[in-house]
Amino acid sequence: MFELGILIKNILEIYPADKAEVLKDQYLIIEDKKIKKIASMESCPSEKEFSEQIDAEGKILLPGLINTHTHSAMTLMRGYADDMPLQKWLQNKIWPFEAKLSEDDIYWGTALGVLEMLKSGTTAFADMYFAMDRAAEVVAKSGIRAVLAEGLIEANDGEEGLENSLNFALEYNNTAEGRITTMLAPHAPYTCSRAYLAKITELAADNNLAVHIHLSETKAEVEDFINKHSVSPIKFLDEFNFFENHILAAHVVHLEPGDLKILKNDNVNIAHNPVSNAKLGSGIAPIIDYLAADINVSLGTDGVSSNNNLDLITEARMAAYLQKVNNYDPSLIDTQQLLKMLTINGAQTLNLSQTGMIKEGKKADLILIDTQSNSFSYPHHNNLSNLFYAADSRVVDTVIIDGKIIVEAGEIKTLDQEKIYYEAEKRAKRIADKLK
Amino acid sequence: MFELGILIKNILEIYPADKAEVLKDQYLIIEDKKIKKIASMESCPSEKEFSEQIDAEGKILLPGLINTHTHSAMTLMRGYADDMPLQKWLQNKIWPFEAKLSEDDIYWGTALGVLEMLKSGTTAFADMYFAMDRAAEVVAKSGIRAVLAEGLIEANDGEEGLENSLNFALEYNNTAEGRITTMLAPHAPYTCSRAYLAKITELAADNNLAVHIHLSETKAEVEDFINKHSVSPIKFLDEFNFFENHILAAHVVHLEPGDLKILKNDNVNIAHNPVSNAKLGSGIAPIIDYLAADINVSLGTDGVSSNNNLDLITEARMAAYLQKVNNYDPSLIDTQQLLKMLTINGAQTLNLSQTGMIKEGKKADLILIDTQSNSFSYPHHNNLSNLFYAADSRVVDTVIIDGKIIVEAGEIKTLDQEKIYYEAEKRAKRIADKLK
Repeated sequence: MFELGILIKNILEIYPADKAEVLKDQYLIIEDKKIKKIASMESCPSEKEFSEQIDAEGKILLPGLINTHTHSAMTLMRGYADDMPLQKWLQNKIWPFEAKLSEDDIYWGTALGVLEMLKSGTTAFADMYFAMDRAAEVVAKSGIRAVLAEGLIEANDGEEGLENSLNFALEYNNTAEGRITTMLAPHAPYTCSRAYLAKITELAADNNLAVHIHLSETKAEVEDFINKHSVSPIKFLDEFNFFENHILAAHVVHLEPGDLKILKNDNVNIAHNPVSNAKLGSGIAPIIDYLAADINVSLGTDGVSSNNNLDLITEARMAAYLQKVNNYDPSLIDTQQLLKMLTINGAQTLNLSQTGMIKEGKKADLILIDTQSNSFSYPHHNNLSNLFYAADSRVVDTVIIDGKIIVEAGEIKTLDQEKIYYEAEKRAKRIADKLK
Repeated sequence: MFELGILIKNILEIYPADKAEVLKDQYLIIEDKKIKKIASMESCPSEKEFSEQIDAEGKILLPGLINTHTHSAMTLMRGYADDMPLQKWLQNKIWPFEAKLSEDDIYWGTALGVLEMLKSGTTAFADMYFAMDRAAEVVAKSGIRAVLAEGLIEANDGEEGLENSLNFALEYNNTAEGRITTMLAPHAPYTCSRAYLAKITELAADNNLAVHIHLSETKAEVEDFINKHSVSPIKFLDEFNFFENHILAAHVVHLEPGDLKILKNDNVNIAHNPVSNAKLGSGIAPIIDYLAADINVSLGTDGVSSNNNLDLITEARMAAYLQKVNNYDPSLIDTQQLLKMLTINGAQTLNLSQTGMIKEGKKADLILIDTQSNSFSYPHHNNLSNLFYAADSRVVDTVIIDGKIIVEAGEIKTLDQEKIYYEAEKRAKRIADKLK
């Protein structure tokens, strides 16, 4: 007998993401990890034909949310240092803490991050950090989807680090039943030389790997770069065809003349991190210009040390707020655009085109949002507005990834939450105590 | 036998708000609606001596949060209209909806707002709306503290409205066991004439009432005003000594030269509404300038139609983000300043100086925050940072107002939540359907 699949019935509304249409009173069938059928409840088959069934009464169905830029192990630094000048914060707090992280610490920090992401509706994320084989263990165990890359700072990692990161990328690509894919990840143009970046560009092309990089995050960084190289970081990278590979560029806050055209012509995918950019005082990325130029903009939380959580619902809200207030125009960035940035655009950024929308044949990465869970949800003029502008992540009820139920009634099924809390606490405290 | 009071024991940390000090491992005694004693657990008396006791293990104690500007009945408009140009939004959506509100609708809309405020840790709020006697019923029943005022738009309300609002203010001041106080509330300088505002100024002085007003919220409004009156709204009001009364000025986003000095010299209290100002594209109020000039800045959510919730924790977070990003300086506005704006500064704004801090002799308006309630709370480097930068309002465990426990383990004790949801839903839908 074959696997009979999952029936989700009585779905109040489906938001497909690839179109603005809202489908009401639907059922959806998942088979072989994919969305097999979406149709009106009028024709709903008997639940006896399925191995599992979910009654989604009062719930809306969205594609799983996609976090296109984070450093998940940095959960261990949540609240460790805030409200400090950037260089002092990095040099006196973040870097010394990072220097004390063991590989086991990275495992447990990533576990805390993945737990938080899953419970807040994230089904896929892009991670750039160290000891990514340990992060891969968490991904495999948890059931989440992830695009992993070893971050490379030339002065620290050099040629050996590059080789290791390439080996990691080749070894782990398409593992965990295909839920793990990989990229190469030079940290930034200002921490890697032209030769190093050119070599990464070549290796990425030769091995069909995408590249994840921090780009033009702060004004000071771009000004320093121009003083040193006489061109903007984006122009600099373009000179040796860096952007010919599939590129995930995080931040992209400060553009110089000519930069926008390069981003557009080379189909650069942007991970916009509005909360981190605000909290670190980096600036407001001109994403309405990017969207107007048809540049793909997705959303990332960045690491918890500068956020201080991994909640994509409030991240999206912030993206809308910042464009509206910065341009004195409340009509900029509506809820449909927020949904797209969090789903279909995120899928494109991560090279995961089989996810990010609710459509027959696509992979079953889905979330159910409870529209009756708290005061923030009443009244119900518009459930998508309530989600993006009013709710908090406790509205996330069910998370399905690759056709498997990972979160049910807000509770995680694949990870030991108490053990993760215990280990994360112990390890974070140990490092903080050492640095006192 | 006399009332024996409440013992709160095993308090992990107390954040008093009037000083930056954090008190660890404390107990606190409430007697006769006031904070009677705060001391170390080492000397904790036997719980048998008290009529009620709360074990606050793993919880931190803060003064209750104070929302200094809202229109609580507007919860009925949550998600009714978003992402629209301001005038179109007001004229085609908000005003027609408001025109259909009955007094009962205002009762239930206010009830939904008060329910939401209480569950998210708000112990006092300033409301400006219509049918405030119905809002007062909700305040009396719920146990919350409130400063109520009938909003006055001259063209709609005229002399009769002014008389009614004065009568309301005099009749309801110090009712609900003192939890209700009142103000006069001319809507704004651009919706009331000089004569009308001057009369309100006189009536406020004669009756010892404070005044709640919208001030310099949008750029267009200030520009129009200057075109018409040749002076800024603030200068205009100053000319007839408007600011000699106790003033609660909401928004104050756009200043003209000379305005700051007036605000400072006349001790104007500002209700800063960062989320509403962002969502409506109004701009970023220069609160770092206000704070530097020792002007009292507190926080308000504004109405739900432009927020879209009444959550002061995320409101505070937004206040920090906007100053940091707008000034490219991550060190601006730290968590202690956020705490003060939400508590002690709010109390000053609302003329409630017996609240807003945790100090022996002050009124017992207190909240307990659970530091172990979810992933966002781990690890525990800094609980105040986790609250303001990472948490959502589900961390609010207990709310005490005027010495009475109103919310316990996250559940409301004084209001019928299901009935409120039902009525708010029904009434919001009825109006929306009529306007279709």
